[in-house]
Amino acid sequence: MTDVIELAKALINRRSVTPDDAGCQQMMQDWLQELGFSNETLVFEDTTNLWARRNQQGPLFCFAGHTDVVPSGPEAAWKTPPFTATEVDGYLHGRGAADMKGSLAAMLVATQRFVKDYPDHKGSIAFLITSDEEGPFINGTTRVVDTLEARNEKIDWCIVGEPSSTQRVGDVVKNGRRGSLTGDLTVKGVQGHVAYPHLASNPVHEAAAALAELADTHWDEGNAFFPPTSFQISNIHAGTGAGNVIPGTLEVCFNFRFSTQVTDHMLIDRVEAILNQHQLDYDITWTHNGQPFLTDSGDLVDAVEKAIQSVSGQATTLSTAGGTSDGRFIAPTGAQVVELGPVNATIHKVDECVRMDDLIALTDMYYHTLRELLA
Amino acid sequence: MTDVIELAKALINRRSVTPDDAGCQQMMQDWLQELGFSNETLVFEDTTNLWARRNQQGPLFCFAGHTDVVPSGPEAAWKTPPFTATEVDGYLHGRGAADMKGSLAAMLVATQRFVKDYPDHKGSIAFLITSDEEGPFINGTTRVVDTLEARNEKIDWCIVGEPSSTQRVGDVVKNGRRGSLTGDLTVKGVQGHVAYPHLASNPVHEAAAALAELADTHWDEGNAFFPPTSFQISNIHAGTGAGNVIPGTLEVCFNFRFSTQVTDHMLIDRVEAILNQHQLDYDITWTHNGQPFLTDSGDLVDAVEKAIQSVSGQATTLSTAGGTSDGRFIAPTGAQVVELGPVNATIHKVDECVRMDDLIALTDMYYHTLRELLA
Repeated sequence: MTDVIELAKALINRRSVTPDDAGCQQMMQDWLQELGFSNETLVFEDTTNLWARRNQQGPLFCFAGHTDVVPSGPEAAWKTPPFTATEVDGYLHGRGAADMKGSLAAMLVATQRFVKDYPDHKGSIAFLITSDEEGPFINGTTRVVDTLEARNEKIDWCIVGEPSSTQRVGDVVKNGRRGSLTGDLTVKGVQGHVAYPHLASNPVHEAAAALAELADTHWDEGNAFFPPTSFQISNIHAGTGAGNVIPGTLEVCFNFRFSTQVTDHMLIDRVEAILNQHQLDYDITWTHNGQPFLTDSGDLVDAVEKAIQSVSGQATTLSTAGGTSDGRFIAPTGAQVVELGPVNATIHKVDECVRMDDLIALTDMYYHTLRELLA
Repeated sequence: MTDVIELAKALINRRSVTPDDAGCQQMMQDWLQELGFSNETLVFEDTTNLWARRNQQGPLFCFAGHTDVVPSGPEAAWKTPPFTATEVDGYLHGRGAADMKGSLAAMLVATQRFVKDYPDHKGSIAFLITSDEEGPFINGTTRVVDTLEARNEKIDWCIVGEPSSTQRVGDVVKNGRRGSLTGDLTVKGVQGHVAYPHLASNPVHEAAAALAELADTHWDEGNAFFPPTSFQISNIHAGTGAGNVIPGTLEVCFNFRFSTQVTDHMLIDRVEAILNQHQLDYDITWTHNGQPFLTDSGDLVDAVEKAIQSVSGQATTLSTAGGTSDGRFIAPTGAQVVELGPVNATIHKVDECVRMDDLIALTDMYYHTLRELLA
């Protein structure tokens, strides 16, 4: 069998900073072809994506991941060169070790083992791999999903290899994510001299009560899987710098992280109702960063929980906390989606690393999951 | 007699951008010496000031003014060169024509005429001239006033030559000014990721209700001479630029223009009470830009009203509207202070100009005022 550590090293050694895949997908493709996968390379603009599938029948299990990594920052700040995978005291160091080249290697080796043990397994196995997960996420997973939808190719179960664990591998599985919605608000006033306020209209004054109401609103109570929807003003700016000028406009940027108790349209309606009720003269631009998704139960959650229990001897915790992931593009197709990957303590940081024993355990967890679902 | 237009031109032709006097005061000094004035040049840091006085007995009439001008901006934007006084259709064009080299010339010529007509006039006449009125006003009038106070030299009546008129010369006399008080507020929160609001504290949210209350507060009703006190937020800033970061601090700059119904201390107490009541964690820095002053009646107002009536045939309007002037430094000594000067429509703008007939009328108004008070 291929060694998961050696495979992870080979991927880490490729300098695949978003959106550059740096040949990682070609390496995976060559490797999967040996296991009977048929490969499709889907290039959209600057992004290379891989759709690899073994068998055509249902149900379809898919592993979703990315070959791109965030930049290393100044390499001199690293203890070991970020693009030369290095073993240090039982850990494998290098950019992408935890997010998520370690997961890619673990799933490849788990699949190799599963296909060897169960050559005539039921259903199909697929890999959906992108190189823009860390970037603008415009030409990656979302466009591959569009392509699959267009030809009616349905994913039933999906594991996203994001580093979901907090203390030890498998202690946390993400079974959903909050939605994210951004508003860019411009409140319009009339600029003027502070000595002549009757000739001006101060947009900061006009907006203050509306902003206070937005900050004070309870959007929902959350539910068993999601904390209450959260509204945060991230940026607010008005003024010329001069102390004697009433500003002409106020710019406010805010973000919702929202539960499955509300939709983006409900939030937009409620925000605009508050702005209108305060009679503001405003423009607003909404950016939908992703709908919330939730896989609260089913075959996939059962299989993953069982696999983790059998490998680690410990129960896992289902969580929907944290940022967004490419799961948000896959879940709306009706797929069950969970995220399972290594400990996330060092991701996006200097000296990113993963415990080598954790990669071996993760390989086992992926293998057991495949067995639960497709053996 | 000296021609007021020629004298104004000679001053305009000197490029005296704050704090550079460019020899204007030396020219005035030489000129006043001829009329029996004794001159003192008071240099503080980068600023040249002139205190010129004729006679030693009381009462003391003082003309206060400045030789400095604001920058011209790009000279190519001007129809005539800003530092070459030019006659155009009955107007004298050039930087400082209206603010306030025209007034300086008018008062010099009025004084020449008055001293010739009334060589043994009662009381004293003085000129208090600075070159930092348009700048930081730290080393100008305020320090000359300190010097006079220290030697117990008291001004009884003061005309400030600021361009007070709106449609025709003398239509408005400023008999007071609102006070100005600036607050620089920093509201402290805890920076964090928008996905983890429970680990952060958003200072924009914390402050919003307090800012709404400040914007909504009625500070006073004003009085017969002053409009109600006005509070204006001039600048507000928070945020890193990133949409997913809760800002750690909020910076707010605001300004009060206040009537004689309140004091700066009353305003500070009320603002801080509101901030405390909202339990904000904040720092605040207060800058006192000037106390309000008012000369509601007395010899000076009577003399100026009479002079304007006799020259223009029309009544004047007393007003306390508009920005601040160096009058705020002189009024607290107990002096009666009014501002009388040309039409202010073009001040601080490209193609600043003054009607030449207005300068002649203004000279007459100053002359008549002197005669009312000191003949």
